[in-house]
Amino acid sequence: MAKTGYFVVIGCGRLGSRVAGYLSEQGHSVVVIDAREERFERLPAEFTGFTIHGDASEIETLKQAKMERADVVMALTSDDNTNFMLAQIARKMFGVTRVISYVHNPENMELFKDFSIEAFCPVLLAFETLKGLLEEMKS
Amino acid sequence: MAKTGYFVVIGCGRLGSRVAGYLSEQGHSVVVIDAREERFERLPAEFTGFTIHGDASEIETLKQAKMERADVVMALTSDDNTNFMLAQIARKMFGVTRVISYVHNPENMELFKDFSIEAFCPVLLAFETLKGLLEEMKS
Repeated sequence: MAKTGYFVVIGCGRLGSRVAGYLSEQGHSVVVIDAREERFERLPAEFTGFTIHGDASEIETLKQAKMERADVVMALTSDDNTNFMLAQIARKMFGVTRVISYVHNPENMELFKDFSIEAFCPVLLAFETLKGLLEEMKS
Repeated sequence: MAKTGYFVVIGCGRLGSRVAGYLSEQGHSVVVIDAREERFERLPAEFTGFTIHGDASEIETLKQAKMERADVVMALTSDDNTNFMLAQIARKMFGVTRVISYVHNPENMELFKDFSIEAFCPVLLAFETLKGLLEEMKS
């Protein structure tokens, strides 16, 4: 990847908007997709990227986002199945080398791993954090 | 806190059920509260704690959970306002020394901190994780 990259962020929720804002701040090119236009209001005022109001499960929307040029695609919708499908489409149809997916249900992590999809699960991150807080307590 | 403690976990969602199962496995006494009974099905089969099917925003439910005896209360409902209120009630009315709250909206973290409520926000944990993943990429 060049010093700055081209990022497609799918899902402009609490995490997606924050990540998109951060990437834009870091000087990257960013396109954010969301089916609910009002969610773009979450983006910081300084956001210099593009927004696409559309359904990311339609190929047309992904083409519009020039997904084939993306260095990284982040599948951050609120639905694990959608994120799984987006990761597969990004890689197989658009040849994107790096896709990172949000996994809501910890039980789905295995499926994503089986398909070698880079994934993170905030529930598991929170669980580890809580375990850490309780460990501290013992000492 | 003694070697084993008494934990009240409010909210048996993906995180609550996992944390409750873990605490029970560690030999702690655990009570889990949820207003939706079917959510207790998420608890592992080996769970040895108690479940209370009830509304945690009603004091009666908290009394039933013997909250005044809790070493730790975890407010893990899906609503930040409820978690905030529960933390305040646990401390002020039941004298619980340690309350840990789930914060969904990162923008609420400041409020919780202003009230010295120990809080964690999975969105922020995920954001840090993503930043870490992208840092790795540069090298």
